[in-house]
Amino acid sequence: MGVIGIDLGGTKIAAGVFSGGELRSRITVPTPEAGGQAVIEAMAKAAQTAMQEAGESAKAIGLGTPGPLDYTQGVIKFAPNIAGFTNFPIRDLLEKATGLKVYLENDANAAALAEHVLGAAKEASSSLFVTVSTGVGGGFVLDNRVLHGAHGQGAEVGHITVLPGGPLCGCGLDGCLEALATGPAMERMALAVYKTEVTTRELFARFEAKDPRAARIVLQAAHYAGIGLASLVKAFDPEVIVLGGGVALNAGPAYLEEVQRSYQRYMEGWIAPPIYMAKLGSEAGLLGAALTAGLEVGEV
Amino acid sequence: MGVIGIDLGGTKIAAGVFSGGELRSRITVPTPEAGGQAVIEAMAKAAQTAMQEAGESAKAIGLGTPGPLDYTQGVIKFAPNIAGFTNFPIRDLLEKATGLKVYLENDANAAALAEHVLGAAKEASSSLFVTVSTGVGGGFVLDNRVLHGAHGQGAEVGHITVLPGGPLCGCGLDGCLEALATGPAMERMALAVYKTEVTTRELFARFEAKDPRAARIVLQAAHYAGIGLASLVKAFDPEVIVLGGGVALNAGPAYLEEVQRSYQRYMEGWIAPPIYMAKLGSEAGLLGAALTAGLEVGEV
Repeated sequence: MGVIGIDLGGTKIAAGVFSGGELRSRITVPTPEAGGQAVIEAMAKAAQTAMQEAGESAKAIGLGTPGPLDYTQGVIKFAPNIAGFTNFPIRDLLEKATGLKVYLENDANAAALAEHVLGAAKEASSSLFVTVSTGVGGGFVLDNRVLHGAHGQGAEVGHITVLPGGPLCGCGLDGCLEALATGPAMERMALAVYKTEVTTRELFARFEAKDPRAARIVLQAAHYAGIGLASLVKAFDPEVIVLGGGVALNAGPAYLEEVQRSYQRYMEGWIAPPIYMAKLGSEAGLLGAALTAGLEVGEV
Repeated sequence: MGVIGIDLGGTKIAAGVFSGGELRSRITVPTPEAGGQAVIEAMAKAAQTAMQEAGESAKAIGLGTPGPLDYTQGVIKFAPNIAGFTNFPIRDLLEKATGLKVYLENDANAAALAEHVLGAAKEASSSLFVTVSTGVGGGFVLDNRVLHGAHGQGAEVGHITVLPGGPLCGCGLDGCLEALATGPAMERMALAVYKTEVTTRELFARFEAKDPRAARIVLQAAHYAGIGLASLVKAFDPEVIVLGGGVALNAGPAYLEEVQRSYQRYMEGWIAPPIYMAKLGSEAGLLGAALTAGLEVGEV
């Protein structure tokens, strides 16, 4: 008997049975556009299918979800990409629909937990996961426990202020790490410089081809990413950093070298934990969801 | 039977017996200038005197010390204000000198623990302590456990980068919170502005008297202090912040209002934990040292 992991996203729901240290099944269904209770029913059905495919039942469900959570109440405060998900009591509703105990985790935290237990940080007692893609997310794990924070906003690593007075962030504040180091951040800079839209992928290609303007944009993003990582290390002092997300993983060596250079520069005189690249890719969310339940019920 | 707390500083050693939730004795002796083993002997003697004054023996010693620590080995890596304290195996030496088990804690962490258990954060399950004086130090406590970090440099809150390219810090990096928000930081600004030395105390007096140059200096320091606190909250998400240290406690309401204003501005759209002023004053170090042992041996 294993546990079920469910990774709930704005467009799809992934579910799988986890036992004996690995996923025994993996299924994916679309997230119902109706939102609300329809999403609960789709998740319950996906859990059922995942058990059938694995030929195994489950003790509990671990659910990774977007949005800030109230962990005590089992409530999603809001999730902009799913209808009807404001102050939504997702835990109790899914428990009612499945008859199984449900453990909630924020999706970035779930990925952090997966990399900590099974991925790049598996030898470490503490790790800081930072994902750089369209946003900057992450999670801090110490002794297999995710730091939720007192208000469910622990390790909101994308929103530390890296440059006061810098570019505005989607959160409304100025100079957040997320406003400086992500794909959209680079695309905004590219629009200013090239006067036309340039995708992140194209920017990286121009950077590798030694276009000085692309280099300036990419290196600036990497520079602030390194500064942000160094500040986060001075807060958490993790044994290792795990870096993931589309920008970090697809950017190529020159970008990563600049992140390292900037990070090392802002760790001078300090012990700098190594930066490892995330290992679990898109499966981190599903694995982390399963681990969230697995660690609670002794199935890891 | 209680525990002994020892607060080791560069100029004095405070020791006391803690039992039944309070200090039963408090003694202070000078820190021997010879450093090294002389400091061990002075601490052992102070512990003895503290037990005599309290009329009570002790199960263990909690020792609060300056400098970065190797908690596993019980070693002070370095303490610039005490001779012979480089890679100094202080725990084993003090255990040998006293026959008691010794638990080590960094002094800022000890103060954080004291405010968490007995002081301003005593109702909270997690708290971030930040002390602003000649430096910026602090500690993060969750469920009565201090975050040491994997390399003994957890919650080095003074050295998050608040302004890349900003003033150089004592640690050698640019734009650390400590380089922007402390007494010495303000005094450096004052020297640039007034072309003569002005103490922090005098600056605060001029600020209260509405001198616009003093206002600019003090408000800028408070501004960066608020930004730093907001970034730290996005990392740790503590239930409460406890603010201590000479600058924070003696600055007066106008400074604190500006810290609040800046902090609230950089928490807009987020849940902002309240900022409480530290309650235990100069006794926090001694109490925290005692609690470090007390929590281990069940004497709190």
